[in-house]
Amino acid sequence: MILEKVNSPKDLKELSLNELNELSDEIRSVLLKKLSENGGHIGPNLGVVELTIALHYVFNSPKDKLVFDISHQTYIHKMLTGRKEAFLDPEKYNSVTGYSNPEESEHDFFLLGHTSTSVSLACGLAKARDLKGDKENIVAIIGDGSLSGGEAYEGLNNAFELNSNMIIVVNDNDQSIAENYGGLYKNLKELRATEGKAECNFFKAIGLDYIYVKDGHNIAQLIEAFEKVKDTNRPIVVHVPTIKGKGFKFAEENKESFHAGPPFDLTTGKPKFTSDSEDYSTWTSHYLLDAMKKDPSVLMINAGTPAPFGFTEEVRTLAGKQYVDVGIAEEHAVAFSSGLAKNGAKPVFCLFSTFLQRTYDQILHDLCINNNAAVLLVFGASVHSFNDVTHLGFFDIAMIGNIPNLVYLAPTSKEEYLAMLDWGVHQKGHPVAIRVPVTSLISTGIEDKTNYSILNKYEVTNQGKDVAIIALGDFYHLGKSVVDNLKDNSDYNPTLINPKFITGLDKTLLENLKKEHKLVITLEDGILEGGFGEKVASFYGPSNIKVKNYGIKKNFYNKFNAEDLLKENGISVEQIVNDIKNILNK
Amino acid sequence: MILEKVNSPKDLKELSLNELNELSDEIRSVLLKKLSENGGHIGPNLGVVELTIALHYVFNSPKDKLVFDISHQTYIHKMLTGRKEAFLDPEKYNSVTGYSNPEESEHDFFLLGHTSTSVSLACGLAKARDLKGDKENIVAIIGDGSLSGGEAYEGLNNAFELNSNMIIVVNDNDQSIAENYGGLYKNLKELRATEGKAECNFFKAIGLDYIYVKDGHNIAQLIEAFEKVKDTNRPIVVHVPTIKGKGFKFAEENKESFHAGPPFDLTTGKPKFTSDSEDYSTWTSHYLLDAMKKDPSVLMINAGTPAPFGFTEEVRTLAGKQYVDVGIAEEHAVAFSSGLAKNGAKPVFCLFSTFLQRTYDQILHDLCINNNAAVLLVFGASVHSFNDVTHLGFFDIAMIGNIPNLVYLAPTSKEEYLAMLDWGVHQKGHPVAIRVPVTSLISTGIEDKTNYSILNKYEVTNQGKDVAIIALGDFYHLGKSVVDNLKDNSDYNPTLINPKFITGLDKTLLENLKKEHKLVITLEDGILEGGFGEKVASFYGPSNIKVKNYGIKKNFYNKFNAEDLLKENGISVEQIVNDIKNILNK
Repeated sequence: MILEKVNSPKDLKELSLNELNELSDEIRSVLLKKLSENGGHIGPNLGVVELTIALHYVFNSPKDKLVFDISHQTYIHKMLTGRKEAFLDPEKYNSVTGYSNPEESEHDFFLLGHTSTSVSLACGLAKARDLKGDKENIVAIIGDGSLSGGEAYEGLNNAFELNSNMIIVVNDNDQSIAENYGGLYKNLKELRATEGKAECNFFKAIGLDYIYVKDGHNIAQLIEAFEKVKDTNRPIVVHVPTIKGKGFKFAEENKESFHAGPPFDLTTGKPKFTSDSEDYSTWTSHYLLDAMKKDPSVLMINAGTPAPFGFTEEVRTLAGKQYVDVGIAEEHAVAFSSGLAKNGAKPVFCLFSTFLQRTYDQILHDLCINNNAAVLLVFGASVHSFNDVTHLGFFDIAMIGNIPNLVYLAPTSKEEYLAMLDWGVHQKGHPVAIRVPVTSLISTGIEDKTNYSILNKYEVTNQGKDVAIIALGDFYHLGKSVVDNLKDNSDYNPTLINPKFITGLDKTLLENLKKEHKLVITLEDGILEGGFGEKVASFYGPSNIKVKNYGIKKNFYNKFNAEDLLKENGISVEQIVNDIKNILNK
Repeated sequence: MILEKVNSPKDLKELSLNELNELSDEIRSVLLKKLSENGGHIGPNLGVVELTIALHYVFNSPKDKLVFDISHQTYIHKMLTGRKEAFLDPEKYNSVTGYSNPEESEHDFFLLGHTSTSVSLACGLAKARDLKGDKENIVAIIGDGSLSGGEAYEGLNNAFELNSNMIIVVNDNDQSIAENYGGLYKNLKELRATEGKAECNFFKAIGLDYIYVKDGHNIAQLIEAFEKVKDTNRPIVVHVPTIKGKGFKFAEENKESFHAGPPFDLTTGKPKFTSDSEDYSTWTSHYLLDAMKKDPSVLMINAGTPAPFGFTEEVRTLAGKQYVDVGIAEEHAVAFSSGLAKNGAKPVFCLFSTFLQRTYDQILHDLCINNNAAVLLVFGASVHSFNDVTHLGFFDIAMIGNIPNLVYLAPTSKEEYLAMLDWGVHQKGHPVAIRVPVTSLISTGIEDKTNYSILNKYEVTNQGKDVAIIALGDFYHLGKSVVDNLKDNSDYNPTLINPKFITGLDKTLLENLKKEHKLVITLEDGILEGGFGEKVASFYGPSNIKVKNYGIKKNFYNKFNAEDLLKENGISVEQIVNDIKNILNK
């Protein structure tokens, strides 16, 4: 096996073209074996086997610096830079992360997981090199899908000004996670059709030099192109057409479902584990499809990740013109939603909490100052969602919970979620966001008839005394367990409150609690700092009521176990029960 | 006067071409008179007199919907849509705001003040129109400077997908606030040089139809172009070359200083009031120029607004390659800074707090997860800064104060600011942001020798008892006045604390306060929710210490008086002193 001999990029340089080709076959087999057993990003990595080999053959990493956009396509890079055991040895499958990571290797420069950032980061590396008088090559590798994000455009536009070495490899597989959307993709198609010769060329139009590689899976052609641009003294784009999922029939045929996923069967391409159980995503698409049928102005918007929100290809077809994928362009999606609401439509923008971060200003400036009634469905806002440090979903409350005019809601059950969603879609008073639960579907069986137009009205679900527990969203059920535990095992009968509203205090209720309570507990599924509980602490600050806030300490966590993280932060029924007893007995 | 007869766009349609030309002269005179007496955005409005007249002549506002990007160029639009008295009558000069505002007129669709948003907002209006089966024209008017922002690109890229009526007027005056930067501007120059005929065309490259108007100050040509594109069934760009400051010699010659400014003399072009006093901006440029001389890897980065940070044309020339203007591209600027720091440079990105909002994800993901040692200087973060609702600077603490790894500092004097800046530039441990004071320069005359590497260490500047006042940044001086007042007029001797660090609590100090204090007061110059004080309230929540947090209630405020706003929020020496006495006497 040639791969066995490759311990660093240097070893590649000793290989013949035949050996490099053989290596690419080996790598593809290793990748498929691991991914079929362990899951991960499939299509993106199968598509860049030859590209990555050629990059490391020509450039001298880590002196020359490779910056992979989003970096979910770095598995081959990891194999070639001393981390192959994580792909060869099932015992070590989890010894590397799924993204580039400077803690793992000197060949990785950034911890990354959001798209469209590589060119800007690489511009920084390049400008620093120039200021210091160094000479290395700076290479950004960016996919066509990532080019829909504004940050990528800002980077490309500014790369021109460097006027020095900077190589931008466009890995164009004509596919984002789902289909590509946007006028740029018409131009990329023209460029592919003309082998880069079309007169009108997006990259040249923003001042960059440009070359085209005919076959992105031909190592000889790739090496030739990279040798040509190596040590260039001007920013240049190398446009490389590739096939997403290359070499694995099922992945080539089903590009969207093989973008990333769980373990699968190599001979049938079927996932090894499937679940037909309903969840909040399936109910989201059920609800929205139904609402769309009744009202042609209802529409679902997403930024390149439809399937996790229940918008499979089949659902998208049913939604027709009432479905809009904007590409990976969350900023546009929010401003677009504001415009839609202003002109009388009913937009519902579904996105992951971690990507909500990409659109803070549009939420504040384009949407909330204008107080337009768009709906944002925020998925994955929990310690129980993604646990890659780049994809944490629990900064959302500090981020958007403090923006005026926004009504941010935290449902605790299917019925509450659907009632909030229906209210959000049909009201005209406010921008509304909903923190979609990440728990498995919890159904009360009782229709929620709350009038959500009465803002910031909390619900008391158990009237007790001495201690009141305000338990937000997903953590309502934790609060209920604490109450049950105290009722079962002590003389306490705590008051339990489902606040429903993240963005405002029910001051009447909080004021009333003062009469028969000494302690108020807040529970929230996210970081404590800037969050919900601190507002309750501030409210009671000048009074005699004691407050204890539970949440995660502000920090970046990577590949954590959620239950362990919660316990480290004192969040378990046992710990909370003990704290309550201790504080009340003081 | 023709303008006197124009009360709505309908009245324009009755005028002959000669009358329209005469009207444009009148408007220019009215503009110059008001702006010379009252200040405002000068160049942007002088440049779109004919453009705005032609738009309203051809389109039927408000049925047809005009969306002005950033909207600081809407003065003529306001004059033509029933608001001319605000320009003609000095008594009414302040009866309209400087930006588009739906509360003022049905001809305004959004409250706007940040760049690069118009195309996305217009796409929303257009898509809603299509879903409802309506037929009006949707027109976005965007300047060349605004095209450097990623949101504009995302909007243009997605406009293609509408496949229906959408007109994008590119008002190209070859100037941002300062010079333009980026490869796009090379293409715009080519397009102007070839009267739109260059083969490589940015707008066509992202799928849009395109026409060029030879002279953007020729009303007949403009009308012809707009009539041609009216009721188009495909998105189309109308590229209009204009001259920023057109018709006023001094503004044409000094485009940057006449972008916006205070009252000026019509005959000399000189500002009516000037100030030579030093402020935090002049000290920023003094410090940075000096640091650049000593170290070639220090650089100042900004996003299109250099002068307010002391980077006048002269200073920029001195800084040379160590000065980078990225255009209005804050996202790029932050990721770029992260890359610079990673490769050993010392980047300092200066920006206004209101535009910091445009780059939340880059701060969290590209910079702070990677923990690279870039410095952000945040200007205008105070109730005493901009008072346009679109430009509020006091959401910053809730926004970035809760992001892990970031060290956000709040200096209270020149000496402290310079010590923090010097530490930030030369340390390698953290991304550092500094909340630059907006007060006039306060100098203690004593060099600040604090070692800021010891994070979250607060300074006790008066050791007292019973009540402790933690007074952040600009509000330190308010805290001192409260202490002085209590010392002078009561038996209280409050402890006064300058926390210096926004992003962390000095838990040792806070714990020690418990011994001899009953009440802790926090003062911060920003919104209360998600801010600094709530963390202190949360810290003391389970204890017997009372806490009262002072800050601005979460809300959008427009054209407010800062002192009134503070009083409404209970923030004045008198109110705070009374509160303290009341709480302590309970």
